[in-house]
Amino acid sequence: MATSTKPVLHGYFRSSCSWRVRIALALKGIDYDQNNVNLVKDGGQQVTDQYKKINPMQQVPTLTIDDMTLSQSLAIIQYIEETRPGPHLLPPDLKKRAQVRMICDIIASGIQPLQNLYVIKKIGAEKDSWAHHFIQRGFEALEPILKQTAGMYSVGDEISMADICLVPQVYNAERFKVDICQFPTIKRLNQTLLKIEAFKVSHPSCQPDTPAAMQA
Amino acid sequence: MATSTKPVLHGYFRSSCSWRVRIALALKGIDYDQNNVNLVKDGGQQVTDQYKKINPMQQVPTLTIDDMTLSQSLAIIQYIEETRPGPHLLPPDLKKRAQVRMICDIIASGIQPLQNLYVIKKIGAEKDSWAHHFIQRGFEALEPILKQTAGMYSVGDEISMADICLVPQVYNAERFKVDICQFPTIKRLNQTLLKIEAFKVSHPSCQPDTPAAMQA
Repeated sequence: MATSTKPVLHGYFRSSCSWRVRIALALKGIDYDQNNVNLVKDGGQQVTDQYKKINPMQQVPTLTIDDMTLSQSLAIIQYIEETRPGPHLLPPDLKKRAQVRMICDIIASGIQPLQNLYVIKKIGAEKDSWAHHFIQRGFEALEPILKQTAGMYSVGDEISMADICLVPQVYNAERFKVDICQFPTIKRLNQTLLKIEAFKVSHPSCQPDTPAAMQA
Repeated sequence: MATSTKPVLHGYFRSSCSWRVRIALALKGIDYDQNNVNLVKDGGQQVTDQYKKINPMQQVPTLTIDDMTLSQSLAIIQYIEETRPGPHLLPPDLKKRAQVRMICDIIASGIQPLQNLYVIKKIGAEKDSWAHHFIQRGFEALEPILKQTAGMYSVGDEISMADICLVPQVYNAERFKVDICQFPTIKRLNQTLLKIEAFKVSHPSCQPDTPAAMQA
């Protein structure tokens, strides 16, 4: 399936959806190149005609892989899961797979889109309280679900896509000053996961495009 | 895998995410019961303590199936796909699967959440133009993608999850007065799909909770 060309990740250090893909690539041990798409400089490089050709939604991440251009982080991660060896990102048990996907979708459809850059830009002055509201609301739902599904990680004792979505969303929550101490399961999972190499090397604080002032 | 108990879909006739699940159940030929959750009456039945227990996000749909309570339409549909016989909702070809998931996620993460009831309620008076803006923006991205991937249906010549997401989103687009004629591929796919039995029987105009004035 794999071609000899390295995948290229078009992403941005602080984009939580780019981080999701970086974690998946790291967990699978896939070597890749990064093409940095600065979402804020000069109105954003994602709105250029050149970038719109590879991602008409004008978002990051986009992954070019196996002569294909794929957008949407969960679609990308599931393609990697289905075509590459390495640790499973979805558990073999079908009920657990469903729980993993449910948690991913709560984050990817129910929380993250509402605090995405192009959305909060449209909100204007109240953007921080808007983002805070929807992350807080989402975490209030996620906490009791994770309390039921979690073992050492979000679903049982193996790392999955649910963990890949959780950690970047906690990072965003902290940016928007949501108090994570309200959510003991989320807090515990995040702390555990941040110690894992794949989550560390993919962290926004140490990417090629991380500004010096934000480096770890 | 299946138990003898019929699945129960907690949904609302006009919810596009409930409609997605109804289409999937119909395509697979799965018999189910409906529990109607009126999203608007008395401030919405989704916010009751009773419903929050099965869906902490206070959203529809939720499916109780195989002694499990699942939320998030795409997680539900993929569980059905992985556990039930019948026509594939994801193509066997791995690149096409990725395209299907990309299209699903553009709709499920990039468009639908921004025009969801609990979001536009927070927008207030400008909610219609807000919803119009994000659906228009999303369809401008989706049209060139579908132009490349579509055959008779959204990806090639077999019905998939991409079609399941597309038709309810077009229904929402029409509600918010987005002119579908701007998007010839989307328009053509929608017209083709609406002729298929599974899309007809699951349509918001003919559900048990459809108000008389909105019945087809």
